[in-house]
Amino acid sequence: MERHVAIVGAGVIGSAWAARFALHGIDVKVTDPAPDVERVLDEVLANARAAWTHLGLVVAHEGTISVVGSIEDAVAGAGHVQESAPENPAVKIPILEAIAAACPPETVIASSTSGIKPSDLQPTIDNPGRLVVGHPYNPVYLLPLVEVVGGVATDDAAVQRAMATYTEISMKPVHVRVEIDAFIGDRLLEAVWREALWLVNDGVATTEEIDDVIRYGFGLRWAQMGLFETYRIAGGEGGMAHFIRQFGPCLQWPWTKLVDVPELTEELVQTIAEQSDLQSGHHDLRELERIRDANVAAILRALEANDWGAGRTLKEQRERLG
Amino acid sequence: MERHVAIVGAGVIGSAWAARFALHGIDVKVTDPAPDVERVLDEVLANARAAWTHLGLVVAHEGTISVVGSIEDAVAGAGHVQESAPENPAVKIPILEAIAAACPPETVIASSTSGIKPSDLQPTIDNPGRLVVGHPYNPVYLLPLVEVVGGVATDDAAVQRAMATYTEISMKPVHVRVEIDAFIGDRLLEAVWREALWLVNDGVATTEEIDDVIRYGFGLRWAQMGLFETYRIAGGEGGMAHFIRQFGPCLQWPWTKLVDVPELTEELVQTIAEQSDLQSGHHDLRELERIRDANVAAILRALEANDWGAGRTLKEQRERLG
Repeated sequence: MERHVAIVGAGVIGSAWAARFALHGIDVKVTDPAPDVERVLDEVLANARAAWTHLGLVVAHEGTISVVGSIEDAVAGAGHVQESAPENPAVKIPILEAIAAACPPETVIASSTSGIKPSDLQPTIDNPGRLVVGHPYNPVYLLPLVEVVGGVATDDAAVQRAMATYTEISMKPVHVRVEIDAFIGDRLLEAVWREALWLVNDGVATTEEIDDVIRYGFGLRWAQMGLFETYRIAGGEGGMAHFIRQFGPCLQWPWTKLVDVPELTEELVQTIAEQSDLQSGHHDLRELERIRDANVAAILRALEANDWGAGRTLKEQRERLG
Repeated sequence: MERHVAIVGAGVIGSAWAARFALHGIDVKVTDPAPDVERVLDEVLANARAAWTHLGLVVAHEGTISVVGSIEDAVAGAGHVQESAPENPAVKIPILEAIAAACPPETVIASSTSGIKPSDLQPTIDNPGRLVVGHPYNPVYLLPLVEVVGGVATDDAAVQRAMATYTEISMKPVHVRVEIDAFIGDRLLEAVWREALWLVNDGVATTEEIDDVIRYGFGLRWAQMGLFETYRIAGGEGGMAHFIRQFGPCLQWPWTKLVDVPELTEELVQTIAEQSDLQSGHHDLRELERIRDANVAAILRALEANDWGAGRTLKEQRERLG
């Protein structure tokens, strides 16, 4: 990318976008009204550099990260804009309007929204054909996935240019071809989250027990193959059709009765917060981030050695950074 | 374990149990009416040995695996019985009755069922207090998790003895304290599975796109921290209560409307099977198993080097096999 990238909104997600672009040698201009934006950016960039050390990546040329005072200053002349404002259309839409009014007319504007449809974000902006969703996963400087979604007014070319930009910073863009709320990943995450909340709400399991079931069990399968490929193997010699015919009927068993949403009473919030404190309260937040990043980096290197999945993206990243 | 372990039912799960016990130096007697039981056992044991090579584990003394002709021959004198018959109470209950009639009265009988409540399996067996569920995750010779569940008639001592047996073979037993259908893991898996079936059914995403979203994204988080600990970090400095208050309301958004169960029409089964063939049909089943096992082993070693999660179980396993 020859021109700079503009980051509008620099909380955990926006700051990590800034770090990912800068570590790929791309200059970044950041704007955020928060008084501590410099501190958050510094901390996230320090985490990102440490994670890259775990990955064994050497950065020959780091891009600059400048904090500027307005959306206009950030996006003027930008080659790509990444908006990461709070998850609320009433907040995002005026920001996107301001971005579109001030940046070059051909520049792709990508929203990091976790679930709002691009069609709901684009109607009132200038040149709405260049608005896409580019939904990343935290930590953005480490996880390769980004879901790219166009709205009804989005040009195909904008989707392709966003995909190319994300590939340039060593990500794995997945084009979500049908526009739905929450896209693909958050659909799946929300399904698990809802079920997990019931398990805590009903006193069946603590947050730690649920996490242990995931990380000592199927989490180890999902990091490398995902859901369907794992089940293809589980189907044995009969394959995928056999698996579905055998286990499909379980979906009709009483396992599935808890499909309504638990009420998030203050009591449930407190129960979860207390269980989580018991589980991880002995680590402070930055320490937990460093542990997570060191583990994810180690898993990515292990998969790189096996030439598989997200390890292939890391391999390409290593070649790109030379 | 001084006495042998009996494996009743030796499909993919039962055979992998046999391998896990034998590789820990414990003698195993297996019974299964299938004509090709010896072949399946040999193939699974070969996979298990290869996986352990990837783990860098050296087995000083391997237990014997003998196939015998009846339940009675398998369970007479056994120190632990692991039942892995097809997932159907009408099949499992008569088998459990025969096991209980023929094995020592104090021997723990564990069912590998993925979701049937132990209270529904134990009423008609001799000494029902020793029946538990011990639900493992495939591949059993590699993944440490086993969910241990007692029914209304189960003695606490039986739960404790089952947990001790599983610890002896380097597993991570999680006691599911409240008996519910599908326990903890399959509740979560079923929630994701249902949502994933909708995504394919509605043409939103292919099986490969869904798998990519998982393995390039949150699957890398779940392999090491699970759900709640990841969200604790996502809550940032506000912590877990902040995260839930911020993202909880999303549960009420239209993301959650698809909570009913898609009908498993033959057309949907074929769609999934065809997409899965496109995704992975160039690998045969044994090859996919070897790829999966090499990846899971590499992830476990990476986590062992970081002294974290399932890597700690591997570390203990290495010390145990010394």
